[in-house]
Amino acid sequence: MTADVASRIHRVQASMVDASVDGLLVTPSADLRYLTGYHATPLERLTALVLPAASDPVLLVPALERAEAERSAAALAGMQVRTYEETDDAVAMALDVLREGEVVAVDDHMWASRLLAFQTASPTLHMRTAGALLSGLRMRKGSDEVASLRLAGAAIDRVHSRMGEFVRVGRSEREAAALIATAIIAEGHDTVDFVIVGSGPHGASPHHAVSDRQIQAGDPVVVDIGGSTANGYCSDSTRTYVVGAEPDAAFTDYYYVLLEAQRTQCDFARSGVTAESVDRVGRRVIAEAGYGEFFVHRTGHGIGLETHEEPYIVEGNHLVLEAGMAFSIEPGIYLPGKHGARIEDIVVTTDDGVERLNTTTRELIVLEG
Amino acid sequence: MTADVASRIHRVQASMVDASVDGLLVTPSADLRYLTGYHATPLERLTALVLPAASDPVLLVPALERAEAERSAAALAGMQVRTYEETDDAVAMALDVLREGEVVAVDDHMWASRLLAFQTASPTLHMRTAGALLSGLRMRKGSDEVASLRLAGAAIDRVHSRMGEFVRVGRSEREAAALIATAIIAEGHDTVDFVIVGSGPHGASPHHAVSDRQIQAGDPVVVDIGGSTANGYCSDSTRTYVVGAEPDAAFTDYYYVLLEAQRTQCDFARSGVTAESVDRVGRRVIAEAGYGEFFVHRTGHGIGLETHEEPYIVEGNHLVLEAGMAFSIEPGIYLPGKHGARIEDIVVTTDDGVERLNTTTRELIVLEG
Repeated sequence: MTADVASRIHRVQASMVDASVDGLLVTPSADLRYLTGYHATPLERLTALVLPAASDPVLLVPALERAEAERSAAALAGMQVRTYEETDDAVAMALDVLREGEVVAVDDHMWASRLLAFQTASPTLHMRTAGALLSGLRMRKGSDEVASLRLAGAAIDRVHSRMGEFVRVGRSEREAAALIATAIIAEGHDTVDFVIVGSGPHGASPHHAVSDRQIQAGDPVVVDIGGSTANGYCSDSTRTYVVGAEPDAAFTDYYYVLLEAQRTQCDFARSGVTAESVDRVGRRVIAEAGYGEFFVHRTGHGIGLETHEEPYIVEGNHLVLEAGMAFSIEPGIYLPGKHGARIEDIVVTTDDGVERLNTTTRELIVLEG
Repeated sequence: MTADVASRIHRVQASMVDASVDGLLVTPSADLRYLTGYHATPLERLTALVLPAASDPVLLVPALERAEAERSAAALAGMQVRTYEETDDAVAMALDVLREGEVVAVDDHMWASRLLAFQTASPTLHMRTAGALLSGLRMRKGSDEVASLRLAGAAIDRVHSRMGEFVRVGRSEREAAALIATAIIAEGHDTVDFVIVGSGPHGASPHHAVSDRQIQAGDPVVVDIGGSTANGYCSDSTRTYVVGAEPDAAFTDYYYVLLEAQRTQCDFARSGVTAESVDRVGRRVIAEAGYGEFFVHRTGHGIGLETHEEPYIVEGNHLVLEAGMAFSIEPGIYLPGKHGARIEDIVVTTDDGVERLNTTTRELIVLEG
């Protein structure tokens, strides 16, 4: 772990030199956790990794975070932890570490209030997002990261395997979601990141979360769930169930089209093909069956310390996949006002294909209800 | 609810005129939920409330979020929902709504990548944080918001009441935290926001989360927990327990000092006094008992749709409290390397004092272990 952090810092510094970036500021985020092992909550007081391209980094934290910061992998590997008191100017202290710099990159999710404070304190700096400096590293997973994602996948699979306990006729989506959330924790996650229960017509809205709608007999129900494990790696898997009675024939017709599309994509994906080509092969199956207009989102997103990160599996992304990239394959078909379906697995690219990290059946399951 | 949203928008617009702000951009955040009732996850695609100071707002969302956005309180109250396709330039569409503006405020937690995109697209705009434009509204809770916080407080109190099930000698902090997290959901929250279990010497670090340390007989254990309920309001309460055996006398000595300090603060706080004065009266009790140097953080933070928001109960905050403000009162005493204690209740200011929203005992509890 400590060796990882040191090598990640060196690789970022090399990328910074290539991109003519003089300094990097990383506030609490998945980026900070990746680069330092320090899992800090974003709070009002500034916490930041301050990394010059050509000299040693500093982990700047409020005095009362010292003990936590010193237990981080980065500190244990020798990174300097510098603390400040309430009366100190933390923004100035951070910029002072970068005093030779002209171009400074910030983590993409840094709060606007922080970025504006840095801009105000040093108006001549050219600020940009870290973007590819960090995502290029983060999307190529090490074997320890793949192992963590595998554990997260197995944990969410255990929740899906118990879905008959949670999704029942007469229960509201919200009630089902609360039971699912409890199971997400019980089955091995530290946090519940999202629970989508889209029953009947709500399943036709890809971004529906939950509502007070009661689940009806014969409803298709889209269940898209995920959490984070103790070391921060995320799970994300969707299955679409039918509850309590056979669904209408219109649903069954497109469900098997979707299943075929998702299987085709999983069979196709491998190192050496582009991200967009994975999207295309699934879209083609769905379009040829006449449902093209009802697949209204991209195929997938990368996953790691965040649920959504690079690489995005979408038309226009020419990135060539490499072994060790982790992402979702989650085509969907949505009939507005009626119902919808989505099937989602996390996969990791290998030399000759992908490893699926979610292994519960993708066949149509009719829950007892 | 729909009436609330309309009146909140009007009050923000009035504040914008007073502050010479021409436009406001609010991306997914507690601010967005407060102003529109739209609870959106921050994702790669831009979702934003675009609010000119002097004309009608637009809720700009990706096409596939249309159904969700149209179910929001704001849309139901008549706010225009405008959607864009993957090929549209959403940043330009947002700026176009603000085309008369020169000074544009953004929500404090907007992603740096978004802010930089807006700055790049329109370099002559003067961008600032919304800051007090929104916090001034949000920190004055309506009666419906206080009712929501009361429910959240009761839910976390039920978890504390069951602490003997979770915190046991021989269990690791992490194992105890997983059980607590399950209970946070089971007792009425939609999400687990944080679980701090600081046993023995870890209790001396205010920002410690959890570790694999096994709880020992006689350990003081700081348990600071919170979650969010279905409508987004947060809970946050800390109790410090002793487990399995009497603690050492040094702990008992300062625990009762802390209890007295926290009671003094709760008795003192009311509308008409400043935020910093609430901090001072507690700090004085602790200092007079000789523990001043061991109370290393501010007294508290506001709470509502976020766990940490205005008003901060801290030296230097001259804000005069008003009825309907909700915040934590959470003094602590921390003996580095030994143990620590914190007692935290959420309170709401009333005309003649405060209502405590957490009501489990603050007396020293020795769990069976």
